[in-house]
Amino acid sequence: MKLQSFEEYPFVTGGVCAAQGFRASGVCCGLKHQALSCVTEQAAEANLPEDDAPKKNDLAMIVSDFECSAAAVYTQNKVKGAPILVTKEHLKNGRAAAVIVNSVNANTCNADGVEKANKMCELAAEALDLQPDDVVVASTGVIGQVLPIEPIEAAIPALTKALSYHGNTEAMHAIMTTDTREKELAVRFQIGKKTCTLGGMLKGSGMIHPNMATTLTFLTTDCAISPAMLQQALSDVVRVTLNRVSVDGDQSTNDMVCIMANGMAENKEITDENADYAAFRGALYAVMLNLARLCAADGEGATKLIECVVTEAASEQVAETIAKSVIESSLFKAAMFGADANWGRIACAMGYSDCEYDVNKVSVDLASSKGRITVAKNGCGVPFSEDDAKTILLEDEVQVLISLDSGDASAIAWGCDLTYDYVQINGDYRS
Amino acid sequence: MKLQSFEEYPFVTGGVCAAQGFRASGVCCGLKHQALSCVTEQAAEANLPEDDAPKKNDLAMIVSDFECSAAAVYTQNKVKGAPILVTKEHLKNGRAAAVIVNSVNANTCNADGVEKANKMCELAAEALDLQPDDVVVASTGVIGQVLPIEPIEAAIPALTKALSYHGNTEAMHAIMTTDTREKELAVRFQIGKKTCTLGGMLKGSGMIHPNMATTLTFLTTDCAISPAMLQQALSDVVRVTLNRVSVDGDQSTNDMVCIMANGMAENKEITDENADYAAFRGALYAVMLNLARLCAADGEGATKLIECVVTEAASEQVAETIAKSVIESSLFKAAMFGADANWGRIACAMGYSDCEYDVNKVSVDLASSKGRITVAKNGCGVPFSEDDAKTILLEDEVQVLISLDSGDASAIAWGCDLTYDYVQINGDYRS
Repeated sequence: MKLQSFEEYPFVTGGVCAAQGFRASGVCCGLKHQALSCVTEQAAEANLPEDDAPKKNDLAMIVSDFECSAAAVYTQNKVKGAPILVTKEHLKNGRAAAVIVNSVNANTCNADGVEKANKMCELAAEALDLQPDDVVVASTGVIGQVLPIEPIEAAIPALTKALSYHGNTEAMHAIMTTDTREKELAVRFQIGKKTCTLGGMLKGSGMIHPNMATTLTFLTTDCAISPAMLQQALSDVVRVTLNRVSVDGDQSTNDMVCIMANGMAENKEITDENADYAAFRGALYAVMLNLARLCAADGEGATKLIECVVTEAASEQVAETIAKSVIESSLFKAAMFGADANWGRIACAMGYSDCEYDVNKVSVDLASSKGRITVAKNGCGVPFSEDDAKTILLEDEVQVLISLDSGDASAIAWGCDLTYDYVQINGDYRS
Repeated sequence: MKLQSFEEYPFVTGGVCAAQGFRASGVCCGLKHQALSCVTEQAAEANLPEDDAPKKNDLAMIVSDFECSAAAVYTQNKVKGAPILVTKEHLKNGRAAAVIVNSVNANTCNADGVEKANKMCELAAEALDLQPDDVVVASTGVIGQVLPIEPIEAAIPALTKALSYHGNTEAMHAIMTTDTREKELAVRFQIGKKTCTLGGMLKGSGMIHPNMATTLTFLTTDCAISPAMLQQALSDVVRVTLNRVSVDGDQSTNDMVCIMANGMAENKEITDENADYAAFRGALYAVMLNLARLCAADGEGATKLIECVVTEAASEQVAETIAKSVIESSLFKAAMFGADANWGRIACAMGYSDCEYDVNKVSVDLASSKGRITVAKNGCGVPFSEDDAKTILLEDEVQVLISLDSGDASAIAWGCDLTYDYVQINGDYRS
C-alpha cells in the first residue's frame, strides 16, 4: 500500500520514538502460554514460557523524558476492558508520562480486571519513578480470560532496561496480534520556527469497526499543546480517519487511541484554535489517515484495501453513512475478493444504510491504478467491459466512487475484502 | 436440521400445493445464459439456452383455483426491485390469484424494470385468464442487469401447461439461487370443524438480514380469512421469525413474503382477532418458524444453525437487539465455524448492540444435543472444559443461551457460522 503524502508533512522514520524525548521497548513476557489455561483448572498457576517458544513480543512500554499533555479516545462498546476504565481515570488531569501495554490477553470480562490493570500501572510507575496515575495502560487479545500478572511483573526489569530512543519497532511488535504488517509512521512539521515531529503506531486487524476509537493506537509528539486542544484535535481527526475504517463490523471492547505531547520542540504552546493548531491538526491527520489506511489494508485475511469515496451528497452525514455501509457489506467485500464487478451489491448496501438519498441520481465508478470505469448512472446499470472491470479490481488498492448528485458534501471510508483467510484466522483465534 | 413441531399443527407434505386448490409449476426458461451478457454490448440479444446446459428451473408459477385474500411484507431497502413496486400496487385491493417468479435476475436498478415486471404479470394473466393486477410478481438474482423478457415470454405456455396440484417442488426449485437445501413445508390445523392447510416455500441463503421481510417466501392456505386479518397475522409472525434471521447482514432489495388464502376449507371467514385467528396465526407461526430456521441453517456456506436465545431481559426489544447482534457478529460466526468457545466475542457483540442492559448480570451458556455448559456468569468468565465445549460446538445445531437477569422478556434469533464457502460462493456469484 502506498502512503498518502502531504507536502507540508514529510515522513520521517522512528514511529513513536520519532519525536524528541520518547523512549520505547518491547519484550516477550510469555503471556501466550497462559492464554488457554486461564479458563481451566490451572487458572491460578502461572507458568513461565517454555524455552522453545517463538519469542513474539507481548509487552511494551513508551516513556517520555518529561511529563506530557495527554488525550485519548475510547471504544464505545458497553463491555469495556478493565484497562480502559483505569486509563480514563488516569487521564482525567490531561497528563501522562508513560504507556504500558500487553497483547495476547484483553483483560476484559474478568472479576479482577481493574485490580490487574492498576497493578500494571503500579509496576511501571515504580520502575520509572513515576506516579501510577501518570501511566496509561492498555491490553489487547482474548476477552474473558484471567490476565496472569506474574509474567508481566517478572518482565518489568527487562522491559525498563530495554527502553531506547530507537525502541519503536520492538514496542510495535509487542502490540501486534493477527496483524501481518508493521504499522508505524511519523511526520515532521513546522510550528512557527520550531520543527516538530509526530509519530505513532497502530495495532488492529480484526474486530474493527467505525463509531469508536478502533484498534490500539499510540501517538507521540514533541509539539507543545494544551491537554484541551490535544483532545479536540484527536477527537476531530479520529472522526474522519479511524472511525471510518471497518474490517468486520465488530466493535472491540478494548480500543483506545492515546496521544502524548511533551513540548520538547519548544514551540509556543498551542492553547486555542489558531494557525499553529491547524498545522498540528494537519500533522495528526497525515499520520492517522495513513494508519487508518494501513489498518484497513491489513484487515484480517485482506488481499486489498478498498476506499469508498462518496461525493455530491446533501450532507457529510449522508456521505459517511453510505460510504461505511458499502465497505461493511459482507457480500460486497466477498465480491471484491473475487474481483467481481457486482455493483448491484453496492447499490444494495447503499439502500439499506440509514439515511435519505435519491436512488435515481446515484452513479458508481470503480477505479484503481489500472483505470476507471462507470458501472451505474442515474441508479441504473450501464454497459461496461467485464475485462476492464476485472483488471481494475485485481489491484491491491481499489476505489469505489459514488456520486449522489445532491449537494457538495463528501466522505471517505476504508475497508478490505472478505477472504478465506479471514475465516481461517477467526475460526480458531484462541489457539 | 430437525423441524420444530407443534402438537396442534402436524406437518403434511405438498409445500405450496398442500392446501386445497393451489397448483404450481417450475421450468427452466434459460435466464442463466443471459445473465452476464446483459451488461455487455450484446444486451439486446436474447439467446436461447444451449442444449447441453444444466436445466435448473428459473421460472415458477403458483395459481389458485379461486381468487384469494392476499397479503405481503416487503424489503425495507430503499433500493427496491421493480417487481416489489408492481406487486405492492397489485395487492392494494388485498386480492390475488397467481404468482409468477423468476430467479437468476433480480430486475432491480434497471431503467425498464417496472415495464418488464408488468409484462410478466400480463403474460401470466393472459395465459391464466386473469387480470394483470391479480398477479403477484417477484424476481431474485443479480442486481443491475437488464432482465431479458423473451425467454420468459417463450416459456409461458410450458409453465402454464406444467401447472399441477403436485407442482410445489418444481416451483421451489425455480426460486432457489445459492440455496443448497429444499425449503418447503406445510401444516394441517382445525378452524372449528373444518380442516385447513397452510404451506409455503422459501428461497434464501445469502443477502439475508433482519428488519425486513428477508428472502422470497410464498405461502398458500385454504383457510378463509379477510385480507386485513391476513396482513395482520403475516406482519406479526414475520416480526418474530424471518425478521430474526441473519446470514450476512446484507438486506436484499427484492425480499417479499406473500400469502394467499383461497377459503376452500370453507371455515367461517376470519375477520377479527378471535380464537380462529389465534389458530390460524399458530399455523402460520409453525410454518414460518421452521422456514426461518431452514433459511439460517442453509445460510451461504453454513455448516451449522446457530440459535441465540436471550431470556430474563427487561423488554422484548432488548432481548431481540442482543440476540440479533450476537448472530450477526462475523467474529462470533467464524469462531462457531471453528467450534471455538470464544465467548468473549459474544460479550463483545452484546456490548456494541444498541440497547441498555447490565453487563455485570450477564450469564452465557453454550448448548447442543451433546450437552450444555456455562461459560460466563455475572459478566465474567467461569472455568469450563474446553473439550466439552468443543464437543458441544461441533454439532450442526448450536444454542447460545444468554440470561440478562433483569426481567422476564425473551427473544430468539437465528443465524449460521461464517465459513470458507461463504467467501467462495460470494467471491464470484455472477459467473
